[in-house]
Amino acid sequence: MPVDRSTRHHQVVQIDEFTLINAITAGLPTADFVSVGLGDDAAVVNLEQPSVVMCTDMLVEGRHFRHTWSEAEDIGHRVAAANMADVAAMGAVPKALLLSVAIPAETEAGWVSDLIDGVQAEAEKVGAVVVGGDTNATDGPIVISGTAIGDLQGRAPVRRSGARPGDQVAIAGRQGWAAAGLTVLSRGFRSPRVLVDALRRPEVRYDAGVAAAIGGATAMIDVSDGLVADLGHIAKASGVAIDLSAESLPVDAALRDTAVAFSIDPLLWVLGGGEDHCFAATFPQDTQLPEGFTRIGVVNAGEPVVTVDGGTRRGLSGWRHFGPDRT
Amino acid sequence: MPVDRSTRHHQVVQIDEFTLINAITAGLPTADFVSVGLGDDAAVVNLEQPSVVMCTDMLVEGRHFRHTWSEAEDIGHRVAAANMADVAAMGAVPKALLLSVAIPAETEAGWVSDLIDGVQAEAEKVGAVVVGGDTNATDGPIVISGTAIGDLQGRAPVRRSGARPGDQVAIAGRQGWAAAGLTVLSRGFRSPRVLVDALRRPEVRYDAGVAAAIGGATAMIDVSDGLVADLGHIAKASGVAIDLSAESLPVDAALRDTAVAFSIDPLLWVLGGGEDHCFAATFPQDTQLPEGFTRIGVVNAGEPVVTVDGGTRRGLSGWRHFGPDRT
Repeated sequence: MPVDRSTRHHQVVQIDEFTLINAITAGLPTADFVSVGLGDDAAVVNLEQPSVVMCTDMLVEGRHFRHTWSEAEDIGHRVAAANMADVAAMGAVPKALLLSVAIPAETEAGWVSDLIDGVQAEAEKVGAVVVGGDTNATDGPIVISGTAIGDLQGRAPVRRSGARPGDQVAIAGRQGWAAAGLTVLSRGFRSPRVLVDALRRPEVRYDAGVAAAIGGATAMIDVSDGLVADLGHIAKASGVAIDLSAESLPVDAALRDTAVAFSIDPLLWVLGGGEDHCFAATFPQDTQLPEGFTRIGVVNAGEPVVTVDGGTRRGLSGWRHFGPDRT
Repeated sequence: MPVDRSTRHHQVVQIDEFTLINAITAGLPTADFVSVGLGDDAAVVNLEQPSVVMCTDMLVEGRHFRHTWSEAEDIGHRVAAANMADVAAMGAVPKALLLSVAIPAETEAGWVSDLIDGVQAEAEKVGAVVVGGDTNATDGPIVISGTAIGDLQGRAPVRRSGARPGDQVAIAGRQGWAAAGLTVLSRGFRSPRVLVDALRRPEVRYDAGVAAAIGGATAMIDVSDGLVADLGHIAKASGVAIDLSAESLPVDAALRDTAVAFSIDPLLWVLGGGEDHCFAATFPQDTQLPEGFTRIGVVNAGEPVVTVDGGTRRGLSGWRHFGPDRT
């Protein structure tokens, strides 16, 4: 708890910026591979070898999160997960995170502190650390931008473009849970708790990214826009068609029961939902899938489309930030 | 010009996100040290050796820029410069940039394209490239977050904490120009153009960062909050006092003439101004300063304060994003 009880409820406008930064970062750990951490112009992170995997992902209040649904710590977990999952989807181990925030002046210091605690707690799952950031005032909604870097440890990156006809398609990790949680909350319910929690804090199988790379994955993507939408990115980049088998798609009991209660086809969550950050990958047909992966379909020659049991599914679209077909 | 004439004035809300991203990134170059660039889950950048220098810096509309004063391309230059200067201030060569943006739906696609063009144009000054990003909708002001990584090429990082009593204090690059430009614009003038331009697009001596590292700098910082404020960070981190010599501070003719016209002491700009991203460094007393550096003071034993001719200057404070003493 880096912000002590006396300043926790102070608005950030009441605190000098440097004092604020010192307070909210005071409890953060470092790591032996970090030779310069917080508090200098830039951080210095020592990887095993000099190929740096890097990505950025931003969350905007009112678009990606609501205060009524998520605590600051949850949001920290999410921004860290979104970035680290992208790094892991290349077959790399996430090592370090940067966090920049734009926050209204009336935000409580404790909120920012909890946000960073959430980021660090998520990072700790893979031994990564927060090494820097930037705090700024805004008159608008809170905006949180994260950056993660990762270490390929000598492996070749697993790209979206390597899928070949005959490959198996497989996923690792929860898929559709966050979308189901969103449906639950949108309809005014607070349970099943396991689904609501899945929306608040994804449970990402970071280890599956490295396992897939070691296990011979030909292509891989982090599912954040939706399973069909993101497999569409692999199909397009690889110049292949992908066909999924509906009966092989994992539908957990929590999803099935809630779908019945809401009269929804649970496959819409599994096929269309994003934000769980499961890993979707393709493997040569004879390869034994790494632990955690479930086979869900096959790669075919053909136009880059994604089908289910040979046909397209209605009602599916990935998340769009702009544009007329925004969900 | 990645966005063609037909879509340039389309609002981003009218364009599908992936189409927008393709349009605004279509003209971006890559580099031979980038093995995975735009369009995958994450980028892969190959450094000379595995110590990664990394930092993030965010610009918020209405706080760091105004549309009436800056074009999108200027803002792109600024966010790239702010990040690359931090990397260079560690003694590293900037190699790659990430850019995440939150933009209102009515923003024109051409504005975003120009922003990225500005980032890339600034990056090209040091051979760096844009390798990834994230676009998001917001109901509030535009928020732009940049990340830069750099390559130390085997050098030790130059930290803030290495200044020792007896060291020389020196700066490289413009200092006070952006602050003077801000004064000019704030008073409703548009000239001297050279000062206004300095605010819009900093001219950063990136080469001076590496030169200082090679030349034996004991401490270094990128001046973004103000010369006295940022030297104060060195003083505090190093546990030393710093005394500047007023007559050795470089006051360009443009600064001097404008100061006379506005009845302002130009040293207030030089000592208090940020945003020029000059490099302030300390060197052992017998070291010949690298090209581009001007000696402005000396490091003494004592409490960590920054004085000018042995005394403190009134009217100086660095930029604060929050807090009662915000300028």
